[in-house]
Amino acid sequence: MVDTTTHPDARIAKLEELFASLPGLGPRSAARLVSELLTTRRAEAQAIKDGLQEALPRVHHCPRCHTLTTEPLCNFCSDNTRDNTHLCVVESVADQKALEASLSYQGGYFVLMGRINPLEGTDPERLGLPLLLQRIHQDRVSELILATSHTPEGDVTAHMIAGIVRKHFPEVRVTRLSKGLPTGVELEYADVASIASAVFSRR
Amino acid sequence: MVDTTTHPDARIAKLEELFASLPGLGPRSAARLVSELLTTRRAEAQAIKDGLQEALPRVHHCPRCHTLTTEPLCNFCSDNTRDNTHLCVVESVADQKALEASLSYQGGYFVLMGRINPLEGTDPERLGLPLLLQRIHQDRVSELILATSHTPEGDVTAHMIAGIVRKHFPEVRVTRLSKGLPTGVELEYADVASIASAVFSRR
Repeated sequence: MVDTTTHPDARIAKLEELFASLPGLGPRSAARLVSELLTTRRAEAQAIKDGLQEALPRVHHCPRCHTLTTEPLCNFCSDNTRDNTHLCVVESVADQKALEASLSYQGGYFVLMGRINPLEGTDPERLGLPLLLQRIHQDRVSELILATSHTPEGDVTAHMIAGIVRKHFPEVRVTRLSKGLPTGVELEYADVASIASAVFSRR
Repeated sequence: MVDTTTHPDARIAKLEELFASLPGLGPRSAARLVSELLTTRRAEAQAIKDGLQEALPRVHHCPRCHTLTTEPLCNFCSDNTRDNTHLCVVESVADQKALEASLSYQGGYFVLMGRINPLEGTDPERLGLPLLLQRIHQDRVSELILATSHTPEGDVTAHMIAGIVRKHFPEVRVTRLSKGLPTGVELEYADVASIASAVFSRR
């Protein structure tokens, strides 16, 4: 099979190459995407160009919670109705939104934007941990809730953060979201690890 | 499941929404893409912005062959070593490149940038057919080779173009790439349609 993906026009080929290098896109889907962006989807192409032009110089990690934002403070940190003595550590904005939708939490957030990968070895600085310690100090946080996922990577991340925080702030209560059976799922359809957790944490 | 894909930051959410509307990307992959573009892949984001900014005002259909180009004439049409009395109609730039790589053709090209879809009903204007007729006239084309694919859509497209061209230019020879067995594939592994075509077109 011939490489049929590179466009003969240098400017179009360059765009194809850039899109093909992004996660989730291969050479063929990138070629199709660029072709549509330059023909039937010119309005979207223009909007993407404008959107990147506007966001790139402004985007940064929120200086309080480490999430991505294009404002000086993110929406959550500029909302002064939240109880910032409780601080919940999540892996991602998606996890933060899921937690918000559960209506079970009114405190502050810290968004890691990733997690420790025991095999690849993620740099704790990249997860904003120095900022987390500063936040705990400034807001006189009384409880730190580790809401990382119940996966090997989420467990390692929670364990590492708990260790660091306990060392610097022994007075802060460090908790983790409980494991158990998902609501609305019959026992016979639950996975064995969730059943075992539910048994051990029975109350 | 909650919709956890919309970012709380309006500028970031807008970019996520734009990428999610593109072919091949869903809300989750778009959110991941935008997050990477604004953090670890800022250089690519900047290059995409610059590339779109450069290509969008320049891109157009080549006035000779209908392909996408950002130059006044595309690379093939500005190459005056090609024999333009032969004109080969292809569906896409990818098909054109495959044909070039076969080193079996030295003539001109016409790139439809699509094909007739009998169910959706593709507009012949969108495939540049008025331009094709003009090109046949201007270059005094003696043979038009229809290299659309051997699929129902490719067949309909070839049939329709052959009809229009024969009506306007009865003197032009209209041919189509032959069907048959792929080279290097044993008979037992070939599909039955290819075997049947090879039998009927035996020589």
